[in-house]
Amino acid sequence: MPVISKRGKHAIPSPIRFLAPYASAAEDRGVKVHYMNIGQPDINTPVEAMERVRNTDMKILKYTPSAGVDSYREKLVTYYQRFEVGVKKKDILVTTGASEAISLVLNSCLDIGDEVIVPEPFYANYLGYAHATGVQIQPIPTFIENSFALPDISDFEPLIGPKTKAIFLCNPNNPTGGIYGRVDLEALGQLVKKHDLYLIVDEVYREFCYDEDFYSVLRLAGLEKHTVVIDSISKRFSACGARIGSIVSQNEDLIKACLTFAQLRLSAPGFGQLLGEATLDLPSVYLEGIRDEYDLRRRTLIHRLKKMPGVLCYLPKGAFYAFARLPVADTGKFCQWMLESFSFNNETVMLAPGAGFYATKGRGLDEVRIAYILNTGDIERAMDCLEAGLERYRWISGLVD
Amino acid sequence: MPVISKRGKHAIPSPIRFLAPYASAAEDRGVKVHYMNIGQPDINTPVEAMERVRNTDMKILKYTPSAGVDSYREKLVTYYQRFEVGVKKKDILVTTGASEAISLVLNSCLDIGDEVIVPEPFYANYLGYAHATGVQIQPIPTFIENSFALPDISDFEPLIGPKTKAIFLCNPNNPTGGIYGRVDLEALGQLVKKHDLYLIVDEVYREFCYDEDFYSVLRLAGLEKHTVVIDSISKRFSACGARIGSIVSQNEDLIKACLTFAQLRLSAPGFGQLLGEATLDLPSVYLEGIRDEYDLRRRTLIHRLKKMPGVLCYLPKGAFYAFARLPVADTGKFCQWMLESFSFNNETVMLAPGAGFYATKGRGLDEVRIAYILNTGDIERAMDCLEAGLERYRWISGLVD
Repeated sequence: MPVISKRGKHAIPSPIRFLAPYASAAEDRGVKVHYMNIGQPDINTPVEAMERVRNTDMKILKYTPSAGVDSYREKLVTYYQRFEVGVKKKDILVTTGASEAISLVLNSCLDIGDEVIVPEPFYANYLGYAHATGVQIQPIPTFIENSFALPDISDFEPLIGPKTKAIFLCNPNNPTGGIYGRVDLEALGQLVKKHDLYLIVDEVYREFCYDEDFYSVLRLAGLEKHTVVIDSISKRFSACGARIGSIVSQNEDLIKACLTFAQLRLSAPGFGQLLGEATLDLPSVYLEGIRDEYDLRRRTLIHRLKKMPGVLCYLPKGAFYAFARLPVADTGKFCQWMLESFSFNNETVMLAPGAGFYATKGRGLDEVRIAYILNTGDIERAMDCLEAGLERYRWISGLVD
Repeated sequence: MPVISKRGKHAIPSPIRFLAPYASAAEDRGVKVHYMNIGQPDINTPVEAMERVRNTDMKILKYTPSAGVDSYREKLVTYYQRFEVGVKKKDILVTTGASEAISLVLNSCLDIGDEVIVPEPFYANYLGYAHATGVQIQPIPTFIENSFALPDISDFEPLIGPKTKAIFLCNPNNPTGGIYGRVDLEALGQLVKKHDLYLIVDEVYREFCYDEDFYSVLRLAGLEKHTVVIDSISKRFSACGARIGSIVSQNEDLIKACLTFAQLRLSAPGFGQLLGEATLDLPSVYLEGIRDEYDLRRRTLIHRLKKMPGVLCYLPKGAFYAFARLPVADTGKFCQWMLESFSFNNETVMLAPGAGFYATKGRGLDEVRIAYILNTGDIERAMDCLEAGLERYRWISGLVD
């Protein structure tokens, strides 16, 4: 019998996947589950953009150019200008979601065994993509006590060795909600220049900055060969199923390498690019409205969390996640218990256990990521469940101890 | 300055990519180019399937399940039954085109440095995917003189070493148009069983068998753990831009490993799956009509090719490609010349030079792949160009010699 490859056997499963059967079972028992474990917003995809797809008179759904539909790439140039990013069409490669963008960039910047430094906690799938592309994540720790702020540049230096090829950030950050501003990025810019590294920034949440303006890494002067942006329309336009993202860099060799890999898959999805182009014709007030809505959700969530005994959290500045410490020893077990053995008014909430967002074993065990992608009414009910659940779980745990 | 990874630097470009600027330049000069170099059909995507997308009342374009939309996977079960393939929903993983399917399967079956045996000539992108996933293609030669028939099983044996993990076929074959029937597949089945190898078959052209019934590798009894099918809706429904394919295997471990990798990219495109599901509601007469159309195109093309002095070709049995030998020393140069320096009635034709379909250096230099994806009128005009071009090129070459 043929065997699975080692890399296939050790492929890194999503850290929240193990909870899925418990959520299904809860639903089967008639319990309403509030899903705050993943970044799938409950907000409608813009009607105008959906209409563009519905009204297409396309006769043949052809391959698009491997780099993306020309008119879409041109509009992306204008979109990035809103953030004072001056890139050209040739600097933009349309991808099948941010996922493919990450994979293409890792493959083009790093060889097997090379290392990339990532502040942890980080988006769990980075670990999966690092494994799939054969590169090593070198985590640099950040801490809830200071809202997961970027470490001092001097803390990066000891991690940089001959195999280090890049620093990879998510800004605004999934899962912490932190924002790296101009000062942070300029400091990192000097560092990558000094060590000839790439500075790869996943900016898919750029539209979700609540307290300050967003500063793109592509604005750093003199770092055109070093900086690379990963992007996606999934979050800002609630279009996760479109599978449309992009890679943006003024490093021509890098775009060329990514494109050569991208030519293998021929093209990104056609309908998704149609939708993506339509989103760029929406007035900017559209995204302002969305941001206001998420801001309200953010405040609603944090207001509730801060009142719960033993919960440690801070107001996230961007994206749509809160990373909180719960008064339990193992949030994996607690999240499972919430789905398996608990309900409040016949409802419960699903959260993402924190450990999956760390490369370092033992970190994040008492933390959770909470996605505020539900309306405020649902968030209130979900927090009712969490509050009651924590109280009951502590009581039970006390009994067991 | 940071450098491109070695694998990025040596990523394998599409072998026909170098001709693209010459085709653009020809169009800029006002020359009509007949594109017979790629498998992008000129046939409309089924109106009924496009309508399903146009009529969607979806409000949020959400992630779909990583394994694919449930109802679509269920319909695929019924679709495969048409070919006497008895698989279950759990055996099917929906992918972002056959491209992603190839990548997931190679990653799950082979480790870096492992080998896969592929009859050559083969679909050029297999080489690119082998490079991208770090595996080696071990080509087994087939020859135009006997219509690129499968080599004797005894010719495979010497190629099988400790690193060999799989045999990979395309059936019906791109680029040769050959078909591997039951006898071929049973023989290969015994071979992979003996050596514990996977037998991976790209069956995206299964609907294009003109002279005999298609026999799926999944029908081989007792080989459920060995056989894997790569599939796509791109060709049979002229829906290349949908980016929807699938992996089908009764090897649970393999599907599980592929799914773990697939979870990283969250989901396949949503609109594409909607379209894919709609295609399966079309009456089977739809594909019969499409097959008849391609059969006519096939005969039209071969009729013309056989009349051209010095051209060697045979009637392909499946897919929509002909692989022919031309009376020129280097079809790469000839194809470029056809675009750059030649026109007939202000038209020319773009073909795919044969060398790009071989891993073995020096093979295929006087061969071309011709995709009969144009209507018969256009094929006639394209062949007028080829005939006149060959005559002129031989005359010029004679002068030059």
